[in-house]
Amino acid sequence: MKNTFGQSVSFTLFGESHGEEIGIIIDGLAPGIKVDNDYIRLQLDRRRPSGRISTSRSEADNFRIVSGVFNNRTTGTPICILIPNTNKKSGDYSKLAVLPRPGHADYTAMCKYHGFQDYRGGGHFSGRLTAPLVAAGAIARMALAEKGIYIGTHIKTLAGKSDRSFDTENIKSDIDSLAKSNFPVLDEKSGAEMRVEAEKAASEGDSVGGILETTVIGMPAGVGEPWFDTVESILSHALFSIPAVKGVEFGDGFALADMKGSTANDCFTTDGKSIATKTNHNGGINGGITNGMPLLFRLVIKPTPSIFKEQDTVNLNTMENTKLQIEGRHDPTIVHRAAPVVDAVTAMVLCDLIAGRFGTDYLK
Amino acid sequence: MKNTFGQSVSFTLFGESHGEEIGIIIDGLAPGIKVDNDYIRLQLDRRRPSGRISTSRSEADNFRIVSGVFNNRTTGTPICILIPNTNKKSGDYSKLAVLPRPGHADYTAMCKYHGFQDYRGGGHFSGRLTAPLVAAGAIARMALAEKGIYIGTHIKTLAGKSDRSFDTENIKSDIDSLAKSNFPVLDEKSGAEMRVEAEKAASEGDSVGGILETTVIGMPAGVGEPWFDTVESILSHALFSIPAVKGVEFGDGFALADMKGSTANDCFTTDGKSIATKTNHNGGINGGITNGMPLLFRLVIKPTPSIFKEQDTVNLNTMENTKLQIEGRHDPTIVHRAAPVVDAVTAMVLCDLIAGRFGTDYLK
Amino acid sequence: MKNTFGQSVSFTLFGESHGEEIGIIIDGLAPGIKVDNDYIRLQLDRRRPSGRISTSRSEADNFRIVSGVFNNRTTGTPICILIPNTNKKSGDYSKLAVLPRPGHADYTAMCKYHGFQDYRGGGHFSGRLTAPLVAAGAIARMALAEKGIYIGTHIKTLAGKSDRSFDTENIKSDIDSLAKSNFPVLDEKSGAEMRVEAEKAASEGDSVGGILETTVIGMPAGVGEPWFDTVESILSHALFSIPAVKGVEFGDGFALADMKGSTANDCFTTDGKSIATKTNHNGGINGGITNGMPLLFRLVIKPTPSIFKEQDTVNLNTMENTKLQIEGRHDPTIVHRAAPVVDAVTAMVLCDLIAGRFGTDYLK
Amino acid sequence: MKNTFGQSVSFTLFGESHGEEIGIIIDGLAPGIKVDNDYIRLQLDRRRPSGRISTSRSEADNFRIVSGVFNNRTTGTPICILIPNTNKKSGDYSKLAVLPRPGHADYTAMCKYHGFQDYRGGGHFSGRLTAPLVAAGAIARMALAEKGIYIGTHIKTLAGKSDRSFDTENIKSDIDSLAKSNFPVLDEKSGAEMRVEAEKAASEGDSVGGILETTVIGMPAGVGEPWFDTVESILSHALFSIPAVKGVEFGDGFALADMKGSTANDCFTTDGKSIATKTNHNGGINGGITNGMPLLFRLVIKPTPSIFKEQDTVNLNTMENTKLQIEGRHDPTIVHRAAPVVDAVTAMVLCDLIAGRFGTDYLK
Repeated sequence: MKNTFGQSVSFTLFGESHGEEIGIIIDGLAPGIKVDNDYIRLQLDRRRPSGRISTSRSEADNFRIVSGVFNNRTTGTPICILIPNTNKKSGDYSKLAVLPRPGHADYTAMCKYHGFQDYRGGGHFSGRLTAPLVAAGAIARMALAEKGIYIGTHIKTLAGKSDRSFDTENIKSDIDSLAKSNFPVLDEKSGAEMRVEAEKAASEGDSVGGILETTVIGMPAGVGEPWFDTVESILSHALFSIPAVKGVEFGDGFALADMKGSTANDCFTTDGKSIATKTNHNGGINGGITNGMPLLFRLVIKPTPSIFKEQDTVNLNTMENTKLQIEGRHDPTIVHRAAPVVDAVTAMVLCDLIAGRFGTDYLK
Repeated sequence: MKNTFGQSVSFTLFGESHGEEIGIIIDGLAPGIKVDNDYIRLQLDRRRPSGRISTSRSEADNFRIVSGVFNNRTTGTPICILIPNTNKKSGDYSKLAVLPRPGHADYTAMCKYHGFQDYRGGGHFSGRLTAPLVAAGAIARMALAEKGIYIGTHIKTLAGKSDRSFDTENIKSDIDSLAKSNFPVLDEKSGAEMRVEAEKAASEGDSVGGILETTVIGMPAGVGEPWFDTVESILSHALFSIPAVKGVEFGDGFALADMKGSTANDCFTTDGKSIATKTNHNGGINGGITNGMPLLFRLVIKPTPSIFKEQDTVNLNTMENTKLQIEGRHDPTIVHRAAPVVDAVTAMVLCDLIAGRFGTDYLK
Repeated sequence: MKNTFGQSVSFTLFGESHGEEIGIIIDGLAPGIKVDNDYIRLQLDRRRPSGRISTSRSEADNFRIVSGVFNNRTTGTPICILIPNTNKKSGDYSKLAVLPRPGHADYTAMCKYHGFQDYRGGGHFSGRLTAPLVAAGAIARMALAEKGIYIGTHIKTLAGKSDRSFDTENIKSDIDSLAKSNFPVLDEKSGAEMRVEAEKAASEGDSVGGILETTVIGMPAGVGEPWFDTVESILSHALFSIPAVKGVEFGDGFALADMKGSTANDCFTTDGKSIATKTNHNGGINGGITNGMPLLFRLVIKPTPSIFKEQDTVNLNTMENTKLQIEGRHDPTIVHRAAPVVDAVTAMVLCDLIAGRFGTDYLK
Repeated sequence: MKNTFGQSVSFTLFGESHGEEIGIIIDGLAPGIKVDNDYIRLQLDRRRPSGRISTSRSEADNFRIVSGVFNNRTTGTPICILIPNTNKKSGDYSKLAVLPRPGHADYTAMCKYHGFQDYRGGGHFSGRLTAPLVAAGAIARMALAEKGIYIGTHIKTLAGKSDRSFDTENIKSDIDSLAKSNFPVLDEKSGAEMRVEAEKAASEGDSVGGILETTVIGMPAGVGEPWFDTVESILSHALFSIPAVKGVEFGDGFALADMKGSTANDCFTTDGKSIATKTNHNGGINGGITNGMPLLFRLVIKPTPSIFKEQDTVNLNTMENTKLQIEGRHDPTIVHRAAPVVDAVTAMVLCDLIAGRFGTDYLK
């Protein structure tokens, strides 16, 4: 499997930045799940570029569901979502085929596809393909919400500015506040500072990265496998396929390196009815299996590789060192636009894990 | 697939800490690979406990290969490696079934297996199962070495003490120095400091964690998939199934969050024959695909959850809050013992990726 | 995986008989394969209904390739082929949701999808979905032909009338004669008799079945696995998903039950350079692995379940026994239309097997 | 996946005819299933050679379960079953490496494994590996029986002699009568005739084949997928990996080729509570999905390829035509010994299908 993810519920992604249409197939989702096109529309809008910190390429993302939904409910058979590419620049992209952009996949695509790849706008590697992911994830999120499972992602840091952490006493409220935001932060003041930094980098022809933090509430305990399909394994597998992600950590993550066991262990407590842990340093996962606490993880988005500053590269035809001045439309940061993608990918993974554990009808 | 990893070359792990035998099946490895039992022995010894910073449980790890190797070479059919459990304590483990240890999988195993799990010594979740992983990885490493692909892992930090980084000018030499070490560091002085800290924590009935850093040289460019099987995806999937791993990062990883694109991008350069990047902030991977530079990644090992300090837990029978005093044999740190496991898992992943890309005979 | 087939090269099918569009994703096919739209067109036309022995529903099958092909060659990334449904009857299909048709999937779909399935015209179970299979198979066949691998299928029997067998001395010539035929037989006189019988059954409001026989030449020896992915296993897996197939046999198949070993064994012979078998009772496969001889297999297509004769069924709403008079447009036989589908599915399987064995670039 | 079968419940087979041990891993089976070693013993005994119509190689099949079973119940983690090879002939097998036996996998193994395969006694291709399949299937059958699902296989024909069909009014009684038989027929008189024919062929240095027929009662409706994982697809995939199987058919199978739709269709009927079909020409499967009727299928076992008659072959070293006189221990027929293997493989498939449909706890 290459462009397919998932075992019980699977997702197959296709398309190129400048091809006719891009899309995704969702297979194995239970029948009878209500599909609200407005909610899909909302999530796609969250991913769309916005203002000075995004690319000027504007795509309406007018999705069509051409199979698998009947009378506004899932049928149980494959759902195909298509999104046309409308705002394709007709310019000459052939330069990209010869002068690989640093930090991009141009060179590795050449190594893998021997020059037959569609190099226009990054082709199949383009962040444009996260649009169908978001659309598919929106359907997955609707299914999960029916079971009381909610996902929220905020910008933890951007260009060195930090947001506050999730309020563990009011996570649902935090999640709700993020659900519709195009620039999802928990503290709007921090968000404003982030935008200032991003715009500053943009004005210098440069780009910035950041960290996204995600939480999930309502996941039942007992989901995941000790080897090799731990919840961390499956989630990281999916998350690392989002372009620009270079690190994923769960619970306290890399900070655990400097802790002692007596601090890092999450002790159990009960009210006589249910069991919880007093702390959540392990991000809701022990031994690869959910323990009923909120999932918590973070991932790093590297600074967008497309920058306007001149860079060194190699001319693949002449095999000579040369300079590259990237033109066109670019995002000085994609951290905020990646947030709904992380929400979507997380939802896809959880649907797969739940269907594998509880059967194909569970999410009905 | 649950306890099976890999598509073209796959690994199936089985056994419990106190069962009769543990083992692994390797399937899909090319025929004709030379199998040197001494090398397997060496790698297993690197994983064995050592001195005051390890458990007192001592297992000889007398492995047997009962299939798939004929005349000291792989046949191409499944290789089964078995390792008996000999040093099982005959004590009473039933307490563990009722009083889940914080930070361990005891509680989540109960949620998943409803009490039918073998709870003795962690059962199937035990770090003991990394022994067959190391044995299988040793065979994978022998195959890769024939193709000039070498893997090395060192302790980057332990209990707050840091090792030096890989010397990018002499990586092979660094890798060679790590290959036989039971406590793999690049700077022995740092290693001594780490051991002091670990012993100190042990004397307090506590435990410590750390960070492992791995590099791979010799990987051909053009391996991996843009979606969803990026090299980062597949590696992290496998690495997160190693017990106690809570974070994985590639290249500069989380540090990329605070960089600008003009720094993070790895510019291309050529000598007229081959192409390289001037820096390696992306850890040898662009767009999910290898670019021919050394792979570089780090993972965090949380402090061992088994500590002698008294901890809060819940009695699952009575559903009352209670205290737990863990007895038995434990590792105050497993960071150094995890290093050969990371080497092994990395080798397994690379064999799978390479066989999928170049066919089943490539590693012959 | 549900609607996805294949490991190294995979195919994901989606759509419903009366949905907006149907289609298929091909993933993992080598980059650089020439894609000739006229050849796809030809194969789709072979599958289209023809004359009195087919349904009167006429679909133009105006396929579009919206991804994965660039400058008329495969890119190596997923190929999405879409085919619109244009000739949908606007009639009332709700009766089908209540009165399941004998021999169809109406009742089992209700058991599986709980009434949420798209029941119009058989929905996702419709033979209409074999159109994208044929389109995808056409691309696979173009790739195989470049390597000298050719596939041919003829109607061995239809309504009790038999075609001659493949001429083992001139298989390529036989294959060529079948390649463009809408009613593929090796002996046109037998074909005429078959059509007479089929039309006779049609005039009685009934339907007929038959047997298709397929051969493949040019397959390299050494492809397939002893357990569990024998060539027979993989081919039968794919072939049994073609609607109406109820049996698959290789070589002499069920006739082997009455043979002795001394007859059934295919003895080896050599001209000093290459090795062949004197006979081919095993259909080119020993121990699940190709031996370099032509593949040979047959499958049975049951008589089309849609007939005009009145039949017994149950009203699922009232749970009462009742009569069903099927209306609409039907095929009195689909045997001939299934032939290009079998060609296509066979080509898909072989591409997958070959890529797994020889790597992703082999078919380039 | 090569030697692994199944998605939700999977089976990984390993070992060689003359290796140290052979075995199987069962993964994903629900926790809490009772494991009765006597029942496994019984099924293994049914597979053991018996009298003049079997090989003289006698293996005790003293299996050990070394993981995944605790207190006589499945734990939910991988079950490893090991069976030692004890009765290995120490003779010289190197001739087999040079003179491939007609009808065997010797030549194709050479093409695939380039001479590194373990050629002794057929190596990994040996029918000896069906012993672990039977042991694993026994556990699967115990799980299914708890849910009221029963499997029975009889010898439909052997050497031209036929058994009676299943009595559709008393299938459970027929299944029970087959459950313990070493030569499973429904009509003992026919069985006696079969044995006479088999012994006659044996006395001539030849071998015979036959047809096995299997039924399954108690399968819930609504299991299976339209594309590509039909119940027929999954079952045939598994069944074709049993050595010597060259054809599989469901319901009336190839006989459907000569039927009309009005006969082949199974009409529905109800008693007001449940729904059944009046006939079962489709073998309990419509559109690839179970309909609640008994499953019914047949497979052909070709005559054992090992015969004592002299045969033509090629010397692979000298590339010259030569004669081969097979020595050693052989089965003049394996049809009866294959029956418990078919039972076992069927049980494995059904556990996988059921776990995928209803979740991992369903069989608990």
